[in-house]
Amino acid sequence: MTKITSLRGLLIDELMDLYGAETQLTRALPKMAAAATDEALKQSFSWHLYETEGHVERLERAFSILEEPAKTKTCKAMEGLIAEGKEAVNEKGPGAVRDANLIGAAQRVEHYEIAAYGTARAFAELLGEMEVVALLTETLHEEAATDEKLTGLSKSVNENALHSFTV
Amino acid sequence: MTKITSLRGLLIDELMDLYGAETQLTRALPKMAAAATDEALKQSFSWHLYETEGHVERLERAFSILEEPAKTKTCKAMEGLIAEGKEAVNEKGPGAVRDANLIGAAQRVEHYEIAAYGTARAFAELLGEMEVVALLTETLHEEAATDEKLTGLSKSVNENALHSFTV
Repeated sequence: MTKITSLRGLLIDELMDLYGAETQLTRALPKMAAAATDEALKQSFSWHLYETEGHVERLERAFSILEEPAKTKTCKAMEGLIAEGKEAVNEKGPGAVRDANLIGAAQRVEHYEIAAYGTARAFAELLGEMEVVALLTETLHEEAATDEKLTGLSKSVNENALHSFTV
Repeated sequence: MTKITSLRGLLIDELMDLYGAETQLTRALPKMAAAATDEALKQSFSWHLYETEGHVERLERAFSILEEPAKTKTCKAMEGLIAEGKEAVNEKGPGAVRDANLIGAAQRVEHYEIAAYGTARAFAELLGEMEVVALLTETLHEEAATDEKLTGLSKSVNENALHSFTV
């Protein structure tokens, strides 16, 4: 366990956690895209993979601005979130029910990231690291937009799930 | 792995996940309250423990309305979130830095719950289970209010963290 002795240390720790989380997510999203049956949902996961690769790069730029090595920390929460996503991916029930489950798992991931980026940004702001604030804000907006997009997609997916069931 | 065959099955699965998550949280919050040095933060964790016990009861009522046994499912995401909370609890740095870390961990938990209750409520709504919708809505509002309260508390806590550091 590393001892965190300052707000700057806490910011670095948050960025390492996010760097680990986003990296883990780039490995999970292709599986979620492959498992989705709804075409719009499939595309949305693929698009978010592309965005997530950009989030990884932004974090690398943030480390560079702060003159810190870009290190990942195993993000235990993201591990758990991805484990839940995997359960949804492997569900053998009707496709629409699995899709609804995948959206639920993905929105948990987005909310986790929204909270984590929000915390990191608040620290960076107080430390006067405005370039880092700008980078984190861009990603934060993309995560929030993804969450909204998933809520939009869930309307028709959940409707389909309501009408498709097996015994 | 249980096979989820319908939207109703998915709702039950979400409720079991939340029931597990909230139960795990009732065990973590006292430790977070004990570790907090800021008095308002300490009280906020204690108050949220009281609320969380109410959330557990509401979930039990939801199971009863749906005529399903109240079963927990190990919520892997919450396990990870709580592991991160524990890291914050055990931080040996300055109190204000630990407090800022604890708020970050707690807000991740709140966001996880907001996403999960939002998903469960959307399923219940579509299934016409309006009593369950009402119960989940009450909890959802409390989780959102807790998140906002933590954002409010973070202002002074982060300021204190900025000015307290050890070498």
